[in-house]
Amino acid sequence: MNKHIRVIHPTIGAARDLGEFHDLERSDLQLSSVGLDVGPSELASQFEVALGVPDTCAKAMAAEKEGVHAIVIDCMGDVGVAEARECVSIPVLGPYETSLNIASLLGHKCSVATMVDAVIPVMSSFARKYGFEHNVASIRAINMDVASMVENPAKRDKRLIELSRQLVVEDGADTIILGCTEMLGAEVPVNDALSAEGIYVLIIQPLTVAITVAGALLDAGLTHSKKAFPTPGFAPTSGYDFLPGA
Amino acid sequence: MNKHIRVIHPTIGAARDLGEFHDLERSDLQLSSVGLDVGPSELASQFEVALGVPDTCAKAMAAEKEGVHAIVIDCMGDVGVAEARECVSIPVLGPYETSLNIASLLGHKCSVATMVDAVIPVMSSFARKYGFEHNVASIRAINMDVASMVENPAKRDKRLIELSRQLVVEDGADTIILGCTEMLGAEVPVNDALSAEGIYVLIIQPLTVAITVAGALLDAGLTHSKKAFPTPGFAPTSGYDFLPGA
Amino acid sequence: MNKHIRVIHPTIGAARDLGEFHDLERSDLQLSSVGLDVGPSELASQFEVALGVPDTCAKAMAAEKEGVHAIVIDCMGDVGVAEARECVSIPVLGPYETSLNIASLLGHKCSVATMVDAVIPVMSSFARKYGFEHNVASIRAINMDVASMVENPAKRDKRLIELSRQLVVEDGADTIILGCTEMLGAEVPVNDALSAEGIYVLIIQPLTVAITVAGALLDAGLTHSKKAFPTPGFAPTSGYDFLPGA
Amino acid sequence: MNKHIRVIHPTIGAARDLGEFHDLERSDLQLSSVGLDVGPSELASQFEVALGVPDTCAKAMAAEKEGVHAIVIDCMGDVGVAEARECVSIPVLGPYETSLNIASLLGHKCSVATMVDAVIPVMSSFARKYGFEHNVASIRAINMDVASMVENPAKRDKRLIELSRQLVVEDGADTIILGCTEMLGAEVPVNDALSAEGIYVLIIQPLTVAITVAGALLDAGLTHSKKAFPTPGFAPTSGYDFLPGA
Amino acid sequence: MNKHIRVIHPTIGAARDLGEFHDLERSDLQLSSVGLDVGPSELASQFEVALGVPDTCAKAMAAEKEGVHAIVIDCMGDVGVAEARECVSIPVLGPYETSLNIASLLGHKCSVATMVDAVIPVMSSFARKYGFEHNVASIRAINMDVASMVENPAKRDKRLIELSRQLVVEDGADTIILGCTEMLGAEVPVNDALSAEGIYVLIIQPLTVAITVAGALLDAGLTHSKKAFPTPGFAPTSGYDFLPGA
Amino acid sequence: MNKHIRVIHPTIGAARDLGEFHDLERSDLQLSSVGLDVGPSELASQFEVALGVPDTCAKAMAAEKEGVHAIVIDCMGDVGVAEARECVSIPVLGPYETSLNIASLLGHKCSVATMVDAVIPVMSSFARKYGFEHNVASIRAINMDVASMVENPAKRDKRLIELSRQLVVEDGADTIILGCTEMLGAEVPVNDALSAEGIYVLIIQPLTVAITVAGALLDAGLTHSKKAFPTPGFAPTSGYDFLPGA
Repeated sequence: MNKHIRVIHPTIGAARDLGEFHDLERSDLQLSSVGLDVGPSELASQFEVALGVPDTCAKAMAAEKEGVHAIVIDCMGDVGVAEARECVSIPVLGPYETSLNIASLLGHKCSVATMVDAVIPVMSSFARKYGFEHNVASIRAINMDVASMVENPAKRDKRLIELSRQLVVEDGADTIILGCTEMLGAEVPVNDALSAEGIYVLIIQPLTVAITVAGALLDAGLTHSKKAFPTPGFAPTSGYDFLPGA
Repeated sequence: MNKHIRVIHPTIGAARDLGEFHDLERSDLQLSSVGLDVGPSELASQFEVALGVPDTCAKAMAAEKEGVHAIVIDCMGDVGVAEARECVSIPVLGPYETSLNIASLLGHKCSVATMVDAVIPVMSSFARKYGFEHNVASIRAINMDVASMVENPAKRDKRLIELSRQLVVEDGADTIILGCTEMLGAEVPVNDALSAEGIYVLIIQPLTVAITVAGALLDAGLTHSKKAFPTPGFAPTSGYDFLPGA
Repeated sequence: MNKHIRVIHPTIGAARDLGEFHDLERSDLQLSSVGLDVGPSELASQFEVALGVPDTCAKAMAAEKEGVHAIVIDCMGDVGVAEARECVSIPVLGPYETSLNIASLLGHKCSVATMVDAVIPVMSSFARKYGFEHNVASIRAINMDVASMVENPAKRDKRLIELSRQLVVEDGADTIILGCTEMLGAEVPVNDALSAEGIYVLIIQPLTVAITVAGALLDAGLTHSKKAFPTPGFAPTSGYDFLPGA
Repeated sequence: MNKHIRVIHPTIGAARDLGEFHDLERSDLQLSSVGLDVGPSELASQFEVALGVPDTCAKAMAAEKEGVHAIVIDCMGDVGVAEARECVSIPVLGPYETSLNIASLLGHKCSVATMVDAVIPVMSSFARKYGFEHNVASIRAINMDVASMVENPAKRDKRLIELSRQLVVEDGADTIILGCTEMLGAEVPVNDALSAEGIYVLIIQPLTVAITVAGALLDAGLTHSKKAFPTPGFAPTSGYDFLPGA
Repeated sequence: MNKHIRVIHPTIGAARDLGEFHDLERSDLQLSSVGLDVGPSELASQFEVALGVPDTCAKAMAAEKEGVHAIVIDCMGDVGVAEARECVSIPVLGPYETSLNIASLLGHKCSVATMVDAVIPVMSSFARKYGFEHNVASIRAINMDVASMVENPAKRDKRLIELSRQLVVEDGADTIILGCTEMLGAEVPVNDALSAEGIYVLIIQPLTVAITVAGALLDAGLTHSKKAFPTPGFAPTSGYDFLPGA
Repeated sequence: MNKHIRVIHPTIGAARDLGEFHDLERSDLQLSSVGLDVGPSELASQFEVALGVPDTCAKAMAAEKEGVHAIVIDCMGDVGVAEARECVSIPVLGPYETSLNIASLLGHKCSVATMVDAVIPVMSSFARKYGFEHNVASIRAINMDVASMVENPAKRDKRLIELSRQLVVEDGADTIILGCTEMLGAEVPVNDALSAEGIYVLIIQPLTVAITVAGALLDAGLTHSKKAFPTPGFAPTSGYDFLPGA
């Protein structure tokens, strides 16, 4: 059976080029991506995350109608995951929650290497909401924003290597979650650098993990519990003409 | 000093008539209310709650600009509390979180008497996120929707009395949170009925508690931590012309 | 309605001069204070806290009989809060428990800046008992006793500023509780100093918070759950002639 | 080495007749008991527990001065355990905390069979404070007071058997703590009745456990951590002429 | 890339016939199975689980040497998962831990429908060890052993349907884990029966989930953290001639 | 009554010389020790711990048959404690779990001083399984293996003193568990060195504690709950001819 996973990038910028995920496309697995028409251009606050939720739900419903088999959100803020699960019956996964789950399955204590200090309180609060507070050794930032990481990937990798070493040695992590989907590609140099020092930890690239776990759910015929995420009544709304209820 | 609290009712219906809260208005405390222009007409799912967040933030920013001193959200889904706290510096309180806090301060175990079974998973999940999972004895529903409660308040009170008795006797609650802001007014008959049976528990009316605690924060000169809720950068957005960044 | 809050200072020294709380007295809120006749002269151990409990209960019962509307205990050891709640029906609040509640409402992680290292184990143990262990980032001391703080408030403020910076930067706190009621007045210089460095955290002055939350409970018509704090039978006692049962 | 354990019964009634504990007295272990001069005549509330603390501390200090080797408190309210530990260096054990510890060591989930419903909130709160909330399956009462149990031990045993069956079958307990030191002797009939039905659970008699664990601590040369329970400064007090500081 | 997953059935009986998993075999995924030479014939106690660990480790090391890519243990006791992870570098998954992880990802509260009451304490204890205690609504048994289930699958399904209804309605589960790998095939009738009653919960078949998640880990290039599961030194042993160190 | 405790050293090396425990032998308490015939020669991994379980169970059953009254496992990995409890009805105690219990009874926060970094993840995981995660301030290693400690006890003591100081001052421990049974004897120099610096913490020697608590259980007539640890059916096994079921 052919399986089609839609990656929703919850900003109004261009959708992610999925070329980097070519290896994940198995003979029976196909990826496509889409951005938002209505939403924020950045995702560095809970306010901006909230702005991405309505159209993420619209894009999820459209995907389900198209026959897409599963949805992955391309943002560590897990934009709209709970809300989209209410709107559709196909699996919807967020990279942060999925990474915390897999980290808890493969190690004892994980740390998150994030972008900037300002997002630490929210990521810590989400870890509690997801029930993984006791698994998180620490959450620390390299203090580079998305633009700087894109511009200077070598600097990004250097900082991630330094930070990862601290997360292991000072904070006791055995697993490191690269806490921003823009850190894609850094997992190899970080792993190489630490291994060379005799530090054998697991480096989790969240978007990759969310996509592959989505594939696993499809293979197993599983999706979220509808009792946990019941379908809304779609009563009238105002100002959301791209949504049912408009 | 005069203190002005704005109650935001996060639906596109009419704002709440605050006449019932007349007693809370002290010589130095003034209440006003507002509904949403952009948003849902009902709030019975996480999806609908999300639709209320953007304009709740807009209304909060407008209130702060007007000189309002604090904001209270009129919905047990605590619509937009975290996001609005990022957008403004004046206190923003949600009735569910505030009720759980006050319940933990005044008793050992609280139960929530909510409207319908469908909202139980979310209310349970929020209790964990807020850190009060261990204080919650149970969350159960009277299984009447808003319309039925409005139409038949005597039936609503009868069901709430029956349910409250169960929450105390079967589940061990010493405090009951009336888990829908439309249960306003039921606290007196519920308390009277239980007291007549020798059951002396605390009945919390969430909106009242949120308003009075907001008053306390103003008296004490406190608001949310800006380190916990940092102000967004208000980068460009699309489709939200009522918000900064548009 | 006129509301009268009694502040009980649970030592045999003079009652607190409430002049500093003048601003909290609204047209309908009145404060009075009382010390103990039977009790300790210092409150630096659980033993000394225990010595303050019996007369705190007596003073609480006397206040209720007088027509006082609520009671606030003037000590971070929350001397006699649970016991006095059993003895009376009007609200009784302790500054430590109330501060932890409000800190959890307004931020994600709080730290306590306390007086001396010796009280850290007990304050940590109380945080667990109150259910806020997961909210507390750290508890650290400035290592000055009451006498030194009274004698040298500038030194007290300097140490509090240094410690608060550490609590935020090293321990991740977004909210700081001034963990001794004798640190009253330090909230302004600490807040000013940290703000000047771009650190925007919430500084909680516990006695102020307890008084204002007591006012909120009165406004909302709430008090502790009598199921949680049932009235004692006042069976005979020996050696406590100032208490019922004598 | 001869080991002398002092059992403090924290009421003004007669000290416990330790005849029932004769079997615990080894050739090297000796028991003695004492009641209070200043204190309550009953211990059914936190208020009454508090009234027992000052003289319990006095009796503990006197015992240490006499050369007694360890102290056990004869009340499930663990009257004065923390405070007495500050005052002395010899081990001080409370039956409730010790029972919860041993229950967690010998089974997965324990239930407490207590006297009356009114004490359930406090026993539940103590279980959290001691860190054993997750081990406690339930706390339920037989609803007989001390006088009724003394008068009608057969009825007490019958009720305990019925309740214990429920604690195991309905609540999932594998261990039962007899939650009142006046249930002494019931452990045999309860165990016999349940075993006859094929229910093999552990029945813990708290006072026995506290005494034998005290003996173990003496054998191992252990006592409480003085960093956790630092010695008070014994500053002046008023109204406690039987205590240092008077 | 071809991916080969080895299913280890940790008893000395025949290995599982994997015909039922034919659908999981994608063009690039291949399954094989093996039983133990040294071990127990049943797995109904921790003692029997322990007897399966040494040869499970041997079979895991043999599989890795053969070029197998991942290992799945075919027993809800997760026999030897931690130990085998130390011995090999390829992923090793147990069905119970993996199911609890996926249940927490796709719902709020799960219940386990297990075989017999006797295994409930251990399954509850494992849920705590894995960090999912707060996600588990209940663990209950149909009280049929493996032989009875094999002999009478219709009775097994009937009992599972009845129990599942209780787990949802009485215990609040939104997700049900079929707590014995011998319940394979029951997920369809249970799901059909509950859906027909309007109960839409997620039914997790643990072995299927473990296999598909193993496939996801291979797709993502992930395995357990070697810092969390360091390779043993394989010092000499006695009586284990099938293991390194012999 | 004479009480006989069997110490099982779960390796194939010689059983421990119990001379050091001479003081624990009371007139009515007798110690004996035994090693394994089948098992590992070292215990530095979960794999090696697992290899010790089957014969530990055999030795426990033999001891019970001999009339021994209780069993103590001589390894901080608590080798086979749960499994042996299933096999026998006499008490079986592991030194790590017993130490964590007693540490929680006598202080607020304990730290474990262990041998090498590699065992930290497992010791941390066990603390969670036992329910004491919140009591553990830290787990750190002196990084000496068993051989080095045996060869150079002075160096061992020096490192333990340095580490213990850090555990108290940096991590906040009030109690220190000597996390390897080969640290026997170090409790005195560590305690003396810290006391000389004014640091009064509790030093727990785990094997001593396990033996004395076993004695307490015998005095109280207690053993593990058979509902929690039900006796296995001893179905046929292969390769374990020293066990029932062979």
